[in-house]
Amino acid sequence: MRNLSPENVTEALTRVFDKTPDPRLKELLCTLVRYLHNYAREVQLRPEEWAFAMDAMLRAGKISDTRRNEFIMFSDVLGLSAVVDMMNGAGGKGETAFSQLGPFFEDGLPLAPSHIVDLRATPDGVLPGDPVLFIGSVVSGGGEPVAGAYVDAWQTDVDGLYDLQRPELKGASRLRCRLRTNEDGQFVLKTIRPLGYTAPMDGPGGQMLTATHRNIWRPAHFHFRIGAEGHRTLVTELFPEGDEHLDNDVAFGVRSSLVLTLPECDSQELAREWDMPVPFKKVDYRFELAKAQ
Amino acid sequence: MRNLSPENVTEALTRVFDKTPDPRLKELLCTLVRYLHNYAREVQLRPEEWAFAMDAMLRAGKISDTRRNEFIMFSDVLGLSAVVDMMNGAGGKGETAFSQLGPFFEDGLPLAPSHIVDLRATPDGVLPGDPVLFIGSVVSGGGEPVAGAYVDAWQTDVDGLYDLQRPELKGASRLRCRLRTNEDGQFVLKTIRPLGYTAPMDGPGGQMLTATHRNIWRPAHFHFRIGAEGHRTLVTELFPEGDEHLDNDVAFGVRSSLVLTLPECDSQELAREWDMPVPFKKVDYRFELAKAQ
Repeated sequence: MRNLSPENVTEALTRVFDKTPDPRLKELLCTLVRYLHNYAREVQLRPEEWAFAMDAMLRAGKISDTRRNEFIMFSDVLGLSAVVDMMNGAGGKGETAFSQLGPFFEDGLPLAPSHIVDLRATPDGVLPGDPVLFIGSVVSGGGEPVAGAYVDAWQTDVDGLYDLQRPELKGASRLRCRLRTNEDGQFVLKTIRPLGYTAPMDGPGGQMLTATHRNIWRPAHFHFRIGAEGHRTLVTELFPEGDEHLDNDVAFGVRSSLVLTLPECDSQELAREWDMPVPFKKVDYRFELAKAQ
Repeated sequence: MRNLSPENVTEALTRVFDKTPDPRLKELLCTLVRYLHNYAREVQLRPEEWAFAMDAMLRAGKISDTRRNEFIMFSDVLGLSAVVDMMNGAGGKGETAFSQLGPFFEDGLPLAPSHIVDLRATPDGVLPGDPVLFIGSVVSGGGEPVAGAYVDAWQTDVDGLYDLQRPELKGASRLRCRLRTNEDGQFVLKTIRPLGYTAPMDGPGGQMLTATHRNIWRPAHFHFRIGAEGHRTLVTELFPEGDEHLDNDVAFGVRSSLVLTLPECDSQELAREWDMPVPFKKVDYRFELAKAQ
Protein backbone atom coordinates (compact mmCIF):
# COMPACT_ATOMS: atom_id res chain seq x y z
CA MET A 1 0.00 0.00 0.00
CA ARG A 2 2.91 2.35 -0.51
CA ASN A 3 1.48 2.93 -3.96
CA LEU A 4 -1.70 4.55 -2.73
CA SER A 5 -3.22 6.82 -5.31
CA PRO A 6 -6.46 8.77 -5.56
CA GLU A 7 -7.69 5.95 -7.79
CA ASN A 8 -6.97 2.97 -5.54
CA VAL A 9 -7.20 4.39 -2.03
CA THR A 10 -10.85 3.55 -1.37
CA GLU A 11 -10.48 -0.01 -2.61
CA ALA A 12 -7.27 -0.39 -0.55
CA LEU A 13 -9.06 0.90 2.53
CA THR A 14 -12.00 -1.42 2.30
CA ARG A 15 -9.65 -4.39 1.85
CA VAL A 16 -8.13 -3.85 5.30
CA PHE A 17 -11.47 -4.94 6.73
CA ASP A 18 -11.24 -8.33 5.00
CA LYS A 19 -10.41 -10.17 8.22
CA THR A 20 -13.31 -8.71 10.21
CA PRO A 21 -15.11 -11.67 11.82
CA ASP A 22 -18.51 -9.93 12.12
CA PRO A 23 -19.97 -9.53 8.61
CA ARG A 24 -22.32 -6.72 9.66
CA LEU A 25 -19.47 -4.70 11.17
CA LYS A 26 -17.50 -5.25 7.99
CA GLU A 27 -20.40 -4.00 5.88
CA LEU A 28 -20.92 -0.92 8.08
CA LEU A 29 -17.23 0.03 7.97
CA CYS A 30 -16.54 -0.70 4.30
CA THR A 31 -19.57 1.34 3.31
CA LEU A 32 -18.55 4.11 5.71
CA VAL A 33 -15.10 4.30 4.10
CA ARG A 34 -16.67 4.57 0.66
CA TYR A 35 -19.03 7.35 1.75
CA LEU A 36 -16.32 9.29 3.60
CA HIS A 37 -13.96 9.19 0.63
CA ASN A 38 -16.65 10.02 -1.91
CA TYR A 39 -17.83 12.92 0.23
CA ALA A 40 -14.29 14.33 0.43
CA ARG A 41 -13.93 13.96 -3.34
CA GLU A 42 -17.31 15.40 -4.24
CA VAL A 43 -16.79 18.57 -2.21
CA GLN A 44 -13.01 18.60 -2.86
CA LEU A 45 -12.44 18.91 0.87
CA ARG A 46 -9.59 21.27 1.69
CA PRO A 47 -7.05 20.57 4.46
CA GLU A 48 -8.19 23.60 6.47
CA GLU A 49 -11.82 22.44 6.24
CA TRP A 50 -10.80 18.96 7.35
CA ALA A 51 -8.86 20.49 10.26
CA PHE A 52 -11.88 22.61 11.24
CA ALA A 53 -14.08 19.49 11.27
CA MET A 54 -11.59 17.58 13.43
CA ASP A 55 -11.46 20.46 15.87
CA ALA A 56 -15.27 20.77 15.94
CA MET A 57 -15.53 17.07 16.82
CA LEU A 58 -12.97 17.56 19.59
CA ARG A 59 -14.99 20.49 20.94
CA ALA A 60 -18.19 18.45 20.68
CA GLY A 61 -16.56 15.79 22.84
CA LYS A 62 -15.37 18.32 25.41
CA ILE A 63 -18.79 19.92 25.85
CA SER A 64 -20.60 16.58 26.15
CA ASP A 65 -21.19 14.79 29.44
CA THR A 66 -23.51 12.17 30.89
CA ARG A 67 -26.43 14.57 30.45
CA ARG A 68 -25.54 16.05 27.10
CA ASN A 69 -24.31 14.42 23.92
CA GLU A 70 -23.39 16.97 21.24
CA PHE A 71 -23.02 14.16 18.68
CA ILE A 72 -26.69 13.22 19.13
CA MET A 73 -27.49 16.88 18.62
CA PHE A 74 -25.58 16.86 15.32
CA SER A 75 -27.42 13.68 14.34
CA ASP A 76 -30.75 15.34 15.20
CA VAL A 77 -30.17 18.66 13.45
CA LEU A 78 -28.68 16.99 10.36
CA GLY A 79 -31.71 14.71 10.16
CA LEU A 80 -29.80 11.45 10.61
CA SER A 81 -31.92 10.59 13.66
CA ALA A 82 -35.11 11.23 11.65
CA VAL A 83 -33.94 8.92 8.85
CA VAL A 84 -33.06 6.14 11.29
CA ASP A 85 -36.40 6.58 13.10
CA MET A 86 -38.48 6.51 9.93
CA MET A 87 -36.55 3.66 8.35
CA ASN A 88 -36.91 1.44 11.39
CA GLY A 89 -40.52 2.27 12.17
CA ALA A 90 -43.50 0.95 10.25
CA GLY A 91 -44.32 4.44 8.95
CA GLY A 92 -47.41 4.72 11.11
CA LYS A 93 -49.06 1.58 9.72
CA GLY A 94 -50.02 -0.64 12.65
CA GLU A 95 -47.40 1.10 14.79
CA THR A 96 -47.17 4.62 16.14
CA ALA A 97 -44.48 6.60 14.29
CA PHE A 98 -41.07 6.66 15.96
CA SER A 99 -39.48 9.90 17.02
CA GLN A 100 -36.30 10.64 18.83
CA LEU A 101 -35.34 9.59 22.35
CA GLY A 102 -33.41 12.82 22.81
CA PRO A 103 -30.67 13.40 25.36
CA PHE A 104 -32.92 13.71 28.42
CA PHE A 105 -34.19 10.17 28.79
CA GLU A 106 -33.28 8.55 32.12
CA ASP A 107 -33.27 4.79 32.34
CA GLY A 108 -34.19 2.73 35.40
CA LEU A 109 -36.71 4.97 37.17
CA PRO A 110 -38.66 3.30 40.00
CA LEU A 111 -42.02 1.98 38.86
CA ALA A 112 -45.03 4.08 39.93
CA PRO A 113 -47.49 2.16 42.17
CA SER A 114 -50.45 2.79 39.85
CA HIS A 115 -51.24 3.40 36.19
CA ILE A 116 -52.42 6.87 37.25
CA VAL A 117 -49.59 9.28 38.01
CA ASP A 118 -49.89 12.84 39.23
CA LEU A 119 -46.86 14.61 37.79
CA ARG A 120 -48.07 18.04 38.92
CA ALA A 121 -47.76 17.14 42.60
CA THR A 122 -44.26 17.67 44.00
CA PRO A 123 -42.86 17.90 47.54
CA ASP A 124 -42.75 21.68 46.95
CA GLY A 125 -46.41 21.95 45.97
CA VAL A 126 -48.33 21.83 42.70
CA LEU A 127 -46.25 22.75 39.64
CA PRO A 128 -47.28 25.85 37.71
CA GLY A 129 -48.41 25.43 34.10
CA ASP A 130 -51.49 24.64 32.02
CA PRO A 131 -53.04 21.50 33.55
CA VAL A 132 -53.32 18.56 31.16
CA LEU A 133 -55.12 15.27 31.70
CA PHE A 134 -53.37 12.78 29.44
CA ILE A 135 -55.24 9.52 28.95
CA GLY A 136 -53.16 7.04 27.04
CA SER A 137 -54.04 3.62 25.78
CA VAL A 138 -51.60 1.08 24.47
CA VAL A 139 -52.76 -1.39 21.85
CA SER A 140 -51.11 -4.16 19.92
CA GLY A 141 -50.96 -3.85 16.10
CA GLY A 142 -54.40 -5.38 15.67
CA GLY A 143 -56.03 -3.15 18.27
CA GLU A 144 -55.99 -5.38 21.34
CA PRO A 145 -55.15 -3.57 24.60
CA VAL A 146 -51.72 -4.30 26.01
CA ALA A 147 -51.95 -4.78 29.77
CA GLY A 148 -48.81 -4.28 31.84
CA ALA A 149 -46.89 -2.37 29.16
CA TYR A 150 -44.01 -0.35 30.59
CA VAL A 151 -44.43 3.36 29.90
CA ASP A 152 -41.68 5.91 30.44
CA ALA A 153 -42.87 9.52 30.11
CA TRP A 154 -40.83 12.71 30.47
CA GLN A 155 -41.24 16.35 29.49
CA THR A 156 -40.19 19.94 30.16
CA ASP A 157 -41.69 22.26 32.75
CA VAL A 158 -43.20 25.72 32.41
CA ASP A 159 -39.73 27.16 31.79
CA GLY A 160 -38.95 24.68 29.02
CA LEU A 161 -36.47 22.79 31.21
CA TYR A 162 -36.14 19.11 32.06
CA ASP A 163 -35.49 18.10 35.65
CA LEU A 164 -32.01 17.02 34.56
CA GLN A 165 -31.31 20.65 33.67
CA ARG A 166 -32.20 21.91 37.14
CA PRO A 167 -29.24 21.38 39.50
CA GLU A 168 -31.37 22.65 42.43
CA LEU A 169 -33.40 19.40 42.22
CA LYS A 170 -30.26 17.47 43.17
CA GLY A 171 -31.22 14.51 41.03
CA ALA A 172 -34.87 14.28 42.12
CA SER A 173 -37.24 13.42 39.27
CA ARG A 174 -39.78 15.97 38.09
CA LEU A 175 -42.31 15.60 35.25
CA ARG A 176 -40.92 12.17 34.60
CA CYS A 177 -42.20 8.69 35.52
CA ARG A 178 -42.25 5.01 34.73
CA LEU A 179 -45.51 3.09 35.06
CA ARG A 180 -47.35 0.02 33.78
CA THR A 181 -50.67 0.08 31.94
CA ASN A 182 -53.73 -1.42 33.67
CA GLU A 183 -55.67 -4.46 32.44
CA ASP A 184 -57.33 -2.30 29.76
CA GLY A 185 -53.95 -1.12 28.45
CA GLN A 186 -54.57 2.34 29.86
CA PHE A 187 -52.60 4.90 31.81
CA VAL A 188 -53.28 8.44 32.99
CA LEU A 189 -50.91 11.33 33.52
CA LYS A 190 -52.01 14.40 35.42
CA THR A 191 -49.49 16.83 34.07
CA ILE A 192 -48.92 20.25 32.50
CA ARG A 193 -48.45 21.46 28.97
CA PRO A 194 -44.70 21.22 28.16
CA LEU A 195 -42.80 24.16 26.71
CA GLY A 196 -40.52 24.19 23.68
CA TYR A 197 -36.84 25.04 23.92
CA THR A 198 -33.84 25.83 21.76
CA ALA A 199 -31.02 23.50 20.85
CA PRO A 200 -27.98 24.07 23.10
CA MET A 201 -26.15 26.98 21.49
CA ASP A 202 -22.81 27.04 23.34
CA GLY A 203 -21.12 24.19 21.45
CA PRO A 204 -20.10 23.42 17.86
CA GLY A 205 -23.65 22.29 17.03
CA GLY A 206 -24.95 25.70 18.03
CA GLN A 207 -22.12 27.30 16.07
CA MET A 208 -23.36 25.47 12.97
CA LEU A 209 -26.96 26.60 13.51
CA THR A 210 -25.82 30.20 13.92
CA ALA A 211 -23.56 30.16 10.86
CA THR A 212 -26.39 28.78 8.74
CA HIS A 213 -29.10 31.15 10.05
CA ARG A 214 -31.31 28.21 10.97
CA ASN A 215 -34.25 28.10 13.34
CA ILE A 216 -32.93 26.87 16.69
CA TRP A 217 -36.24 25.91 18.35
CA ARG A 218 -37.88 22.59 19.02
CA PRO A 219 -41.67 22.69 19.37
CA ALA A 220 -43.03 21.59 22.76
CA HIS A 221 -43.41 17.82 23.15
CA PHE A 222 -44.15 14.92 25.46
CA HIS A 223 -41.63 12.05 25.35
CA PHE A 224 -42.69 8.41 25.59
CA ARG A 225 -40.91 5.10 25.55
CA ILE A 226 -43.29 2.14 25.67
CA GLY A 227 -42.25 -1.49 25.85
CA ALA A 228 -44.21 -4.73 26.24
CA GLU A 229 -43.36 -8.39 25.95
CA GLY A 230 -43.62 -9.68 22.41
CA HIS A 231 -43.64 -6.15 20.97
CA ARG A 232 -41.12 -3.80 19.48
CA THR A 233 -40.27 -0.98 21.89
CA LEU A 234 -41.77 2.34 20.78
CA VAL A 235 -39.82 5.56 21.28
CA THR A 236 -41.75 8.63 20.28
CA GLU A 237 -42.72 12.22 20.95
CA LEU A 238 -46.15 13.89 20.87
CA PHE A 239 -46.46 17.54 19.88
CA PRO A 240 -49.34 19.77 21.07
CA GLU A 241 -50.96 21.58 18.12
CA GLY A 242 -50.45 25.34 17.88
CA ASP A 243 -46.72 25.57 18.51
CA GLU A 244 -45.15 27.97 16.02
CA HIS A 245 -42.24 25.60 15.45
CA LEU A 246 -44.21 22.50 14.44
CA ASP A 247 -43.13 23.06 10.86
CA ASN A 248 -39.50 23.87 11.42
CA ASP A 249 -38.42 21.70 14.36
CA VAL A 250 -34.64 22.07 14.49
CA ALA A 251 -34.39 18.34 15.26
CA PHE A 252 -36.90 17.07 12.66
CA GLY A 253 -38.94 15.06 15.16
CA VAL A 254 -42.48 16.06 14.09
CA ARG A 255 -44.75 13.69 12.13
CA SER A 256 -48.40 14.57 11.35
CA SER A 257 -49.58 11.51 13.28
CA LEU A 258 -47.72 12.72 16.38
CA VAL A 259 -49.42 16.13 16.58
CA LEU A 260 -52.01 16.35 19.38
CA THR A 261 -55.07 18.50 19.75
CA LEU A 262 -55.55 19.57 23.37
CA PRO A 263 -59.21 20.54 23.66
CA GLU A 264 -60.15 22.56 26.73
CA CYS A 265 -62.43 20.75 29.14
CA ASP A 266 -64.57 22.51 31.75
CA SER A 267 -66.61 19.55 32.93
CA GLN A 268 -66.92 19.79 36.72
CA GLU A 269 -67.71 16.10 36.83
CA LEU A 270 -64.52 15.06 35.05
CA ALA A 271 -62.55 17.54 37.10
CA ARG A 272 -63.86 15.98 40.31
CA GLU A 273 -63.29 12.44 39.00
CA TRP A 274 -59.64 13.17 38.25
CA ASP A 275 -59.02 15.85 40.85
CA MET A 276 -58.06 18.44 38.22
CA PRO A 277 -58.55 22.23 38.36
CA VAL A 278 -61.13 23.63 35.90
CA PRO A 279 -60.55 24.27 33.06
CA PHE A 280 -57.94 21.75 31.96
CA LYS A 281 -56.80 20.31 28.66
CA LYS A 282 -57.68 16.75 27.91
CA VAL A 283 -55.74 14.44 25.60
CA ASP A 284 -56.68 10.93 24.54
CA TYR A 285 -53.97 9.18 22.61
CA ARG A 286 -53.72 5.62 21.39
CA PHE A 287 -50.23 4.18 21.11
CA GLU A 288 -49.90 1.25 18.71
CA LEU A 289 -47.13 -1.27 19.28
CA ALA A 290 -45.93 -3.61 16.54
CA LYS A 291 -45.49 -7.29 17.30
CA ALA A 292 -41.81 -8.25 17.62
CA GLN A 293 -40.55 -10.28 14.67
CA MET B 1 -42.16 19.69 7.87
CA ARG B 2 -44.56 17.71 10.00
CA ASN B 3 -45.09 15.56 6.93
CA LEU B 4 -41.56 14.23 6.85
CA SER B 5 -41.34 10.92 5.08
CA PRO B 6 -38.49 8.66 4.02
CA GLU B 7 -38.97 10.10 0.53
CA ASN B 8 -38.78 13.82 1.33
CA VAL B 9 -36.58 13.97 4.41
CA THR B 10 -33.26 14.55 2.64
CA GLU B 11 -34.66 17.29 0.43
CA ALA B 12 -36.34 18.90 3.47
CA LEU B 13 -33.07 18.79 5.37
CA THR B 14 -30.98 20.41 2.69
CA ARG B 15 -33.59 23.19 2.33
CA VAL B 16 -33.00 24.36 5.92
CA PHE B 17 -29.57 25.51 4.80
CA ASP B 18 -31.09 27.86 2.20
CA LYS B 19 -30.34 30.97 4.25
CA THR B 20 -26.67 30.11 4.84
CA PRO B 21 -24.70 33.23 3.86
CA ASP B 22 -21.45 31.37 3.04
CA PRO B 23 -21.99 29.35 -0.17
CA ARG B 24 -19.09 26.98 0.57
CA LEU B 25 -20.47 26.16 4.03
CA LYS B 26 -23.86 25.56 2.46
CA GLU B 27 -22.35 23.18 -0.09
CA LEU B 28 -20.38 21.28 2.57
CA LEU B 29 -23.44 20.85 4.81
CA CYS B 30 -26.03 20.04 2.13
CA THR B 31 -23.71 17.42 0.66
CA LEU B 32 -22.98 16.06 4.14
CA VAL B 33 -26.70 15.64 4.83
CA ARG B 34 -27.14 13.77 1.56
CA TYR B 35 -24.23 11.43 2.32
CA LEU B 36 -25.31 10.80 5.92
CA HIS B 37 -28.86 9.94 4.90
CA ASN B 38 -27.82 7.79 1.96
CA TYR B 39 -25.35 5.93 4.15
CA ALA B 40 -28.05 5.19 6.74
CA ARG B 41 -30.37 3.99 3.97
CA GLU B 42 -27.80 1.89 2.13
CA VAL B 43 -26.77 -0.05 5.25
CA GLN B 44 -30.31 0.13 6.74
CA LEU B 45 -28.80 1.50 9.93
CA ARG B 46 -30.49 0.09 13.04
CA PRO B 47 -31.27 2.19 16.11
CA GLU B 48 -28.88 0.18 18.29
CA GLU B 49 -26.08 0.65 15.75
CA TRP B 50 -26.78 4.38 15.64
CA ALA B 51 -26.71 4.47 19.46
CA PHE B 52 -23.39 2.60 19.50
CA ALA B 53 -21.90 5.12 17.07
CA MET B 54 -23.14 8.07 19.17
CA ASP B 55 -21.58 6.53 22.26
CA ALA B 56 -18.30 5.80 20.45
CA MET B 57 -18.08 9.46 19.42
CA LEU B 58 -18.74 10.51 23.00
CA ARG B 59 -15.97 8.19 24.21
CA ALA B 60 -13.65 9.50 21.48
CA GLY B 61 -14.24 13.00 22.80
CA LYS B 62 -13.58 11.98 26.39
CA ILE B 63 -10.26 10.29 25.62
CA SER B 64 -8.99 13.19 23.49
CA ASP B 65 -7.00 16.09 24.88
CA THR B 66 -4.62 18.78 23.65
CA ARG B 67 -2.07 16.06 22.81
CA ARG B 68 -4.38 13.45 21.41
CA ASN B 69 -7.30 13.71 19.00
CA GLU B 70 -9.15 10.42 18.57
CA PHE B 71 -11.16 11.90 15.68
CA ILE B 72 -7.94 12.49 13.72
CA MET B 73 -7.08 8.87 14.46
CA PHE B 74 -10.42 7.75 13.00
CA SER B 75 -9.77 9.97 9.97
CA ASP B 76 -6.31 8.42 9.57
CA VAL B 77 -7.30 4.76 9.98
CA LEU B 78 -10.38 5.17 7.75
CA GLY B 79 -8.21 6.76 5.05
CA LEU B 80 -10.00 10.12 5.02
CA SER B 81 -6.72 11.89 5.83
CA ALA B 82 -5.01 10.07 2.94
CA VAL B 83 -7.74 11.12 0.50
CA VAL B 84 -7.55 14.77 1.61
CA ASP B 85 -3.73 14.69 1.40
CA MET B 86 -3.67 13.16 -2.06
CA MET B 87 -6.46 15.30 -3.45
CA ASN B 88 -4.85 18.54 -2.31
CA GLY B 89 -1.29 17.67 -3.27
CA ALA B 90 0.06 17.66 -6.78
CA GLY B 91 0.49 13.88 -6.70
CA GLY B 92 4.28 14.11 -6.63
CA LYS B 93 4.51 16.14 -9.85
CA GLY B 94 6.59 19.25 -9.10
CA GLU B 95 5.73 18.93 -5.41
CA THR B 96 6.67 16.36 -2.80
CA ALA B 97 3.67 14.15 -1.94
CA PHE B 98 1.69 15.23 1.10
CA SER B 99 1.32 12.95 4.08
CA GLN B 100 -0.31 13.46 7.40
CA LEU B 101 0.61 16.00 10.07
CA GLY B 102 -0.37 13.54 12.79
CA PRO B 103 -1.28 14.42 16.36
CA PHE B 104 2.26 15.14 17.59
CA PHE B 105 3.09 18.33 15.73
CA GLU B 106 3.88 21.27 17.97
CA ASP B 107 3.52 24.76 16.58
CA GLY B 108 5.64 27.77 17.50
CA LEU B 109 8.97 26.16 18.40
CA PRO B 110 11.91 28.59 18.79
CA LEU B 111 13.98 28.88 15.62
CA ALA B 112 17.32 27.04 15.70
CA PRO B 113 20.35 29.38 15.29
CA SER B 114 21.68 27.46 12.29
CA HIS B 115 20.52 25.29 9.41
CA ILE B 116 22.50 22.46 11.02
CA VAL B 117 20.81 20.99 14.08
CA ASP B 118 22.14 18.25 16.32
CA LEU B 119 19.05 16.45 17.59
CA ARG B 120 21.10 13.67 19.23
CA ALA B 121 22.66 16.05 21.74
CA THR B 122 20.53 16.63 24.83
CA PRO B 123 21.26 18.07 28.29
CA ASP B 124 21.32 14.44 29.50
CA GLY B 125 23.91 13.32 26.96
CA VAL B 126 23.78 11.81 23.49
CA LEU B 127 20.53 9.97 22.69
CA PRO B 128 20.75 6.23 22.02
CA GLY B 129 19.74 4.97 18.56
CA ASP B 130 21.16 4.41 15.08
CA PRO B 131 22.88 7.67 14.09
CA VAL B 132 21.49 9.29 10.93
CA LEU B 133 22.89 12.24 9.00
CA PHE B 134 19.92 13.75 7.21
CA ILE B 135 20.83 16.23 4.49
CA GLY B 136 17.76 17.94 3.15
CA SER B 137 17.41 20.39 0.31
CA VAL B 138 14.35 22.44 -0.44
CA VAL B 139 13.65 23.42 -4.03
CA SER B 140 10.89 25.31 -5.75
CA GLY B 141 8.80 23.48 -8.35
CA GLY B 142 11.26 24.22 -11.15
CA GLY B 143 14.28 23.08 -9.13
CA GLU B 144 15.59 26.38 -7.77
CA PRO B 145 16.84 26.24 -4.16
CA VAL B 146 14.60 27.92 -1.61
CA ALA B 147 16.73 29.88 0.84
CA GLY B 148 15.22 30.70 4.23
CA ALA B 149 12.42 28.12 4.06
CA TYR B 150 11.01 27.26 7.48
CA VAL B 151 11.46 23.57 8.29
CA ASP B 152 9.74 21.87 11.20
CA ALA B 153 11.02 18.34 11.86
CA TRP B 154 9.88 15.87 14.53
CA GLN B 155 10.18 12.14 15.12
CA THR B 156 10.09 9.32 17.67
CA ASP B 157 13.01 8.14 19.77
CA VAL B 158 14.51 4.68 20.17
CA ASP B 159 11.44 3.57 22.14
CA GLY B 160 9.00 4.74 19.46
CA LEU B 161 7.85 7.68 21.61
CA TYR B 162 7.55 11.38 20.85
CA ASP B 163 8.78 13.89 23.43
CA LEU B 164 5.13 14.84 24.01
CA GLN B 165 4.53 11.29 25.22
CA ARG B 166 7.27 11.51 27.87
CA PRO B 167 5.98 13.35 30.93
CA GLU B 168 9.44 13.15 32.52
CA LEU B 169 10.66 15.72 29.94
CA LYS B 170 8.26 18.25 31.47
CA GLY B 171 7.57 19.89 28.14
CA ALA B 172 11.19 20.10 26.95
CA SER B 173 11.58 19.37 23.22
CA ARG B 174 13.42 16.26 22.09
CA LEU B 175 14.01 15.09 18.51
CA ARG B 176 12.10 18.09 17.30
CA CYS B 177 13.22 21.42 15.87
CA ARG B 178 12.38 24.40 13.70
CA LEU B 179 15.06 25.83 11.44
CA ARG B 180 15.55 27.83 8.24
CA THR B 181 17.38 26.58 5.17
CA ASN B 182 20.67 28.24 4.21
CA GLU B 183 21.30 30.24 1.01
CA ASP B 184 21.55 26.95 -0.95
CA GLY B 185 18.16 25.78 0.34
CA GLN B 186 19.86 23.17 2.53
CA PHE B 187 19.54 21.94 6.07
CA VAL B 188 21.17 19.16 8.07
CA LEU B 189 19.80 17.09 10.93
CA LYS B 190 22.11 14.98 13.04
CA THR B 191 19.58 12.54 14.38
CA ILE B 192 18.69 8.90 14.95
CA ARG B 193 16.57 6.40 13.10
CA PRO B 194 12.98 6.75 14.35
CA LEU B 195 10.97 3.75 15.52
CA GLY B 196 7.48 2.75 14.49
CA TYR B 197 4.61 2.57 16.93
CA THR B 198 1.03 1.35 17.24
CA ALA B 199 -2.11 3.42 17.05
CA PRO B 200 -3.43 4.23 20.55
CA MET B 201 -5.46 1.18 21.52
CA ASP B 202 -7.29 2.33 24.66
CA GLY B 203 -10.06 4.30 22.94
CA PRO B 204 -12.90 3.62 20.49
CA GLY B 205 -10.48 3.85 17.54
CA GLY B 206 -8.43 1.02 19.04
CA GLN B 207 -11.65 -0.88 19.74
CA MET B 208 -12.45 -0.70 16.02
CA LEU B 209 -8.98 -1.93 15.02
CA THR B 210 -9.28 -4.86 17.44
CA ALA B 211 -12.79 -5.82 16.33
CA THR B 212 -11.69 -5.81 12.69
CA HIS B 213 -8.42 -7.73 13.25
CA ARG B 214 -6.45 -4.99 11.55
CA ASN B 215 -2.74 -4.28 11.73
CA ILE B 216 -2.26 -1.60 14.38
CA TRP B 217 1.29 -0.46 13.49
CA ARG B 218 2.60 2.58 11.73
CA PRO B 219 5.98 2.15 10.04
CA ALA B 220 8.78 4.39 11.39
CA HIS B 221 8.84 7.89 9.89
CA PHE B 222 10.32 11.36 10.01
CA HIS B 223 7.78 14.22 10.04
CA PHE B 224 8.33 17.46 8.13
CA ARG B 225 6.44 20.67 7.64
CA ILE B 226 8.12 23.06 5.25
CA GLY B 227 6.89 26.53 4.41
CA ALA B 228 8.32 29.33 2.32
CA GLU B 229 7.02 32.63 0.99
CA GLY B 230 5.19 32.27 -2.28
CA HIS B 231 4.90 28.50 -1.89
CA ARG B 232 2.28 26.08 -0.67
CA THR B 233 3.21 24.66 2.73
CA LEU B 234 4.29 21.04 2.51
CA VAL B 235 3.32 18.61 5.26
CA THR B 236 4.79 15.17 4.78
CA GLU B 237 6.41 12.09 6.29
CA LEU B 238 9.47 10.12 5.13
CA PHE B 239 9.67 6.39 5.75
CA PRO B 240 12.99 4.52 6.07
CA GLU B 241 13.05 1.45 3.78
CA GLY B 242 12.95 -1.97 5.45
CA ASP B 243 10.15 -1.43 7.99
CA GLU B 244 7.83 -4.43 7.97
CA HIS B 245 4.77 -2.17 8.06
CA LEU B 246 5.51 -0.06 4.99
CA ASP B 247 2.80 -1.91 3.11
CA ASN B 248 0.15 -1.95 5.79
CA ASP B 249 0.51 1.36 7.62
CA VAL B 250 -2.56 1.57 9.85
CA ALA B 251 -2.83 5.28 8.98
CA PHE B 252 -2.24 5.02 5.20
CA GLY B 253 0.53 7.62 5.16
CA VAL B 254 3.08 5.82 2.93
CA ARG B 255 3.66 6.84 -0.70
CA SER B 256 6.44 5.27 -2.83
CA SER B 257 8.07 8.65 -3.30
CA LEU B 258 8.28 9.10 0.47
CA VAL B 259 10.24 5.90 1.15
CA LEU B 260 13.90 6.54 1.96
CA THR B 261 16.96 4.38 1.53
CA LEU B 262 19.39 4.86 4.42
CA PRO B 263 22.74 3.63 3.12
CA GLU B 264 25.39 2.97 5.76
CA CYS B 265 28.38 5.30 5.59
CA ASP B 266 31.76 4.52 7.17
CA SER B 267 33.74 7.41 5.73
CA GLN B 268 36.04 8.73 8.49
CA GLU B 269 36.30 11.99 6.60
CA LEU B 270 32.56 12.60 6.50
CA ALA B 271 32.26 11.47 10.11
CA ARG B 272 34.86 14.07 11.14
CA GLU B 273 33.27 16.76 8.97
CA TRP B 274 29.88 16.26 10.62
CA ASP B 275 31.06 15.03 14.01
CA MET B 276 29.19 11.73 13.65
CA PRO B 277 30.15 8.31 15.06
CA VAL B 278 31.20 5.67 12.49
CA PRO B 279 29.26 4.02 10.96
CA PHE B 280 26.21 6.15 10.45
CA LYS B 281 23.31 6.22 7.99
CA LYS B 282 23.23 9.00 5.46
CA VAL B 283 20.10 10.37 3.81
CA ASP B 284 19.88 12.95 1.06
CA TYR B 285 16.36 14.08 0.31
CA ARG B 286 15.09 16.81 -1.96
CA PHE B 287 11.81 18.44 -0.93
CA GLU B 288 9.90 20.11 -3.75
CA LEU B 289 7.56 22.97 -2.94
CA ALA B 290 4.81 24.07 -5.31
CA LYS B 291 4.38 27.76 -6.06
CA ALA B 292 1.35 29.22 -4.30
CA GLN B 293 -1.51 30.01 -6.65
